[in-house]
Amino acid sequence: MAAPRVTITDVARHAGVSKTLVSFALNDRPGVSPESRRRILAAAAELGWRPSHRARSLSVSRAFALGLVVARPAELLGADPFFLAFIAGVETVLSEHDQALVLLVVRDRAAEVAGYERLARDGRVDGVLVTDLRHDDERLALLERLRLPAVTLNRPAGPSSSPAVCLDDSAGVREAVAHLVDLGHRHIGHVAGPAPFLHSRSRREAWAQALAEHGLPPGPEAVGDFSPASGAAATRTLLGADEPPTAVVYANDLMAMAGLTVAHQCGVQVPGDLSVTGFDDAASAAHTHPPLTTIRADVPAWGARCARTLLELVEGGAAEDVEMPPARLVVRDTTGPPRRGGP
Amino acid sequence: MAAPRVTITDVARHAGVSKTLVSFALNDRPGVSPESRRRILAAAAELGWRPSHRARSLSVSRAFALGLVVARPAELLGADPFFLAFIAGVETVLSEHDQALVLLVVRDRAAEVAGYERLARDGRVDGVLVTDLRHDDERLALLERLRLPAVTLNRPAGPSSSPAVCLDDSAGVREAVAHLVDLGHRHIGHVAGPAPFLHSRSRREAWAQALAEHGLPPGPEAVGDFSPASGAAATRTLLGADEPPTAVVYANDLMAMAGLTVAHQCGVQVPGDLSVTGFDDAASAAHTHPPLTTIRADVPAWGARCARTLLELVEGGAAEDVEMPPARLVVRDTTGPPRRGGP
Repeated sequence: MAAPRVTITDVARHAGVSKTLVSFALNDRPGVSPESRRRILAAAAELGWRPSHRARSLSVSRAFALGLVVARPAELLGADPFFLAFIAGVETVLSEHDQALVLLVVRDRAAEVAGYERLARDGRVDGVLVTDLRHDDERLALLERLRLPAVTLNRPAGPSSSPAVCLDDSAGVREAVAHLVDLGHRHIGHVAGPAPFLHSRSRREAWAQALAEHGLPPGPEAVGDFSPASGAAATRTLLGADEPPTAVVYANDLMAMAGLTVAHQCGVQVPGDLSVTGFDDAASAAHTHPPLTTIRADVPAWGARCARTLLELVEGGAAEDVEMPPARLVVRDTTGPPRRGGP
Repeated sequence: MAAPRVTITDVARHAGVSKTLVSFALNDRPGVSPESRRRILAAAAELGWRPSHRARSLSVSRAFALGLVVARPAELLGADPFFLAFIAGVETVLSEHDQALVLLVVRDRAAEVAGYERLARDGRVDGVLVTDLRHDDERLALLERLRLPAVTLNRPAGPSSSPAVCLDDSAGVREAVAHLVDLGHRHIGHVAGPAPFLHSRSRREAWAQALAEHGLPPGPEAVGDFSPASGAAATRTLLGADEPPTAVVYANDLMAMAGLTVAHQCGVQVPGDLSVTGFDDAASAAHTHPPLTTIRADVPAWGARCARTLLELVEGGAAEDVEMPPARLVVRDTTGPPRRGGP
C-alpha cells in the first residue's frame, strides 16, 4: 500500500496557517502575503505535498468533464427529488466553465466500482462528486487508487483526503423534534432511511439525541428505503404498536406522504392524532393533505458549490472544505398539539 | 442550403422493400437475401445515400458517449418522475456497450441551443437523445446543421431524418376517458401540460377526441406546467366553474395529486363528487389518498430502446423507427361512478 497522501491539512498544520490560506497559496490566488506564501510553499515542499495526478497532467490530458455515479435502482431514483435538483445545480457551474457532466446510473455497488474504473480508465472525467456516503464506503480508497480527484457530499466516516462540501441535515431534524416537543409531544417516532447511508444515520441520530436532550425516553422507530411503499409499511408498524407515537419524524418526504395516506386509511387524524414531518421539501410537499411540515435544504446551491469545489481541486490541486447553510424546518399543517389521551 | 439528406425511407421506397430490410442491409446484419441486399445497395448508390457524417468518421473520432440536453428549471425537474427513470433505462444499455451519458441541464431554449453546439463542437458525444419535442422545434434543424446524429422520443411535428422511438401516450388517455364514460361520467375535464410540448398536445387531443367519439360535448380544460402548484391552481379553476366537471383527466401525476388535495380542502369527495386520473404512475401514485388511477408507460424500457437505436444509428449510419407498447390505464381508487346531481 502506498503511503497516505500528504494533504493540505498537513501543510496547514506544518506551516501554522489555515487550510484556506494554504489552498489560496497553492492555487496562486490573491490575498496571501508574500511571507505566508513562502512559508506555505516551504512546508508543502518539506512534506512532499503534490497536487493530484490529474491536476499535474493538466496540460497533456483533460476531459473537461466531471463525473457522478449514482447507485440506486431506477424505480427509486425516478421519485427522488434530490438528484435532479442537485444535478441542475452542478450544471449551472459546469456550463459557465464549458465543462460537461458524465452521469452513470448503476444498479448496485459492484456496478458502481466498475463505473468508477471505467470513468478513470477512459479518461472521461477529471474528477467525481461522491454522493450517498456509506458507513463502510470503499469508494474513497478506490478513487485514491484510481487517482481520480473527488469531492464528497458531507464528510465520510473514515479518513479522506478529498474536500467535503457539507450540509448539516441534523440541524433541521433537531428543529423538528424541538417543534414537536413545544407542541406538547412526548412520544415521537422516527422512520429512517436505509442504514448503510450516512445521511440516514445522521438524521436518525439527530432525532434520538434531540429526544434525549429534551429529557424524553427513546421513541419507536422503523426503517424504510426512502420509497413510498416502505414509508407506508413503516407507518403501519408504528401505528400498530401498543403505544403508537403521537408524532413521527420521517427521513424523507416520499415516506412521510405515504405515511399521511396510511393515517387517513386508518382513521388517524393528522395532526390531531398524529403529527408528521418530512425531509426534502419536495415540490409536492406543499400540496399534500394537509400540507406537509418538512425540512428544507438548498440542494441546487449544494450542487453548484460541489461543482465549484471539484473544479478548484482539478485545476489547482487543492480545495478547501465548505460548510453550506444547514437544513431548516418548514412548518406547515401536519404538525399540531397532540390530543389528550393520544390516538 | 444543402439538399435534403437522402434517408433510408427514400432508399426503401426506391428499392421497393421495407425500411427494416434497408436498415439491416446497410448495417450488414443477417436476415437479408443476397438479391435484396444487391437491390438495396444499388438503390442507395443511385440516390446518393450516405451514412451520417459522424458514423463515417467513426474510425477517426468517436466519443463513445451519448448526450441528453434537458431544458427545464431545476425546481420542476426535481419532482418529475420521468427523467431519472428514463436515464436509468438509457444507462442499462450504455454500460453494456462501454458508453457514457453526457447530461446537460439548462434553464431555457437559448441555453439549450448553446448546449447542443457545445456538445458538437467539443466532440463530446456521438449522438443525442431528443426529449420533450415541441410544436415548433428548432432542434432538429440545428442537429442536422451540427451533423449530430439524433433519436427523437416520438415523431416530431415537422419532417425529420432522425429515427423515432415512439410510445403512444394517447392510448392510455383514451382508455381513461372510456373508463370514466363507463362509470357514467358525462362532464369530463382536462388539466393539460404546457402547450409547446407535443406530449402535452397529444394527451389533450386524445382527451378531446375520446369525448367526441363517445358523443359527449367538449369538456372544461385548464393548463398547468406539470408542477403541483399549477395542478392545484388548475383544479381550483375547474371546480370553481358554474358546472364543475365530475371527472378530471390530468396530464401528469404531480398535478393530479395536487388536485386531490384541493378537492379535500374544498370538501369535494373523491371519487364520489370528483373522479381523478393521472399520468406517469409515479412511485407515490399508489400511496395517495385514495390511491390514484393513472396511466403507466414503461419509461426505463423506453430509455433503453432509445439508447439502442441511437447506438445503431451512430455505428451503422441508419436505424429503424421503433414502436414501444403504448401507455395503459391503471385503475385504482380515485375513479368511481358520479353521484346523482353531481357535486
